[in-house]
Amino acid sequence: MSELDILARVQATLESRKTAEPSSSYVAGLYAKGTDSICKKVAEEAAETIMAAKDGDAHHLVKEVADLWFHSMILLSQYGVSVTDVAAEFERREGVSGITEKASRPKP
Amino acid sequence: MSELDILARVQATLESRKTAEPSSSYVAGLYAKGTDSICKKVAEEAAETIMAAKDGDAHHLVKEVADLWFHSMILLSQYGVSVTDVAAEFERREGVSGITEKASRPKP
Amino acid sequence: MSELDILARVQATLESRKTAEPSSSYVAGLYAKGTDSICKKVAEEAAETIMAAKDGDAHHLVKEVADLWFHSMILLSQYGVSVTDVAAEFERREGVSGITEKASRPKP
Amino acid sequence: MSELDILARVQATLESRKTAEPSSSYVAGLYAKGTDSICKKVAEEAAETIMAAKDGDAHHLVKEVADLWFHSMILLSQYGVSVTDVAAEFERREGVSGITEKASRPKP
Repeated sequence: MSELDILARVQATLESRKTAEPSSSYVAGLYAKGTDSICKKVAEEAAETIMAAKDGDAHHLVKEVADLWFHSMILLSQYGVSVTDVAAEFERREGVSGITEKASRPKP
Repeated sequence: MSELDILARVQATLESRKTAEPSSSYVAGLYAKGTDSICKKVAEEAAETIMAAKDGDAHHLVKEVADLWFHSMILLSQYGVSVTDVAAEFERREGVSGITEKASRPKP
Repeated sequence: MSELDILARVQATLESRKTAEPSSSYVAGLYAKGTDSICKKVAEEAAETIMAAKDGDAHHLVKEVADLWFHSMILLSQYGVSVTDVAAEFERREGVSGITEKASRPKP
Repeated sequence: MSELDILARVQATLESRKTAEPSSSYVAGLYAKGTDSICKKVAEEAAETIMAAKDGDAHHLVKEVADLWFHSMILLSQYGVSVTDVAAEFERREGVSGITEKASRPKP
């Protein structure tokens, strides 16, 4: 099992919160408040990521990126997509860039 | 192999660009421009993520989240950390929240 | 004439660019690109404002706030409103907060 | 008196809050929390401005731009500068762009 599978587990947990009582957890409450509230959190965490970088604090940066990705995953879940789709998008780009690389090689 | 390992491969590619000629690729150029330029891209991609969500376009949202995470990983790499550290942070939180959950269970 | 009237002059200039050839100026081009492009600039300038603040550079901060307000005014103009409406909103709040202040005074 | 002078009055009020008890008002509390907290609010209000624009709601947009400028002015005040400096920056640019315009005119 890959250490990155934690992201899929987090996504699954977030998904399960969509049908929970809004008062039962922070995430369930955020879903209930709706898209604008989730988007505001994404903006706020992006700002905190930038400020941690400006502070040159790598340890803090990791925590803020985790917060930013966490709230991105809530947004994905709100729209019926997930970290798996993001991974697939990266796969697609890797493929395209592999093709580009091959295409740019000199012919034998 | 997990499908999420693509994130580690992307991170490794980004890491390799740190020592490349700035003119050799978009990412190498961004490292050369420095932290503020990378941070501006993170802010821009966060805004595009929010706008895709507001448009209710799940397919576009996935692409924008990929862009946001991609530039987050460039920022991580700039500070000597990586997606592996973000995964470890999520693991840590999962542990803590597991402990919390246990602690909140009624005693037998 | 107030020194702040410059904001109204800037707004009037922006307004006049709405009907100009997209290639005739930066602003005319931005209107032509549409709302999302203007919004991206607002996000980018907000990030630069934050970074100037983090750098503790007051002179640079002033320039970035000017950029942020400039692009806010383009967005206002895109939607048929202006800095005058923003001023009216501040007036309204000042009135409300005056009322609040009065209301909170001890009765004679 | 110009209607835009309200911005200078708002700035003066913000300035007076810098020495107030943190618990005495929202603004006094924000100063006490420090730069990062003010910056987070700027980012949040920029996101709300973008979302109001995406909703195509001009009335809401005006309110969000007022919020964005309000928090920008708190940040300016935190660094010893003000809306007057922002106005002066716009004046400077108007002058420069006037010069540019003149310079680009065909010689008589």
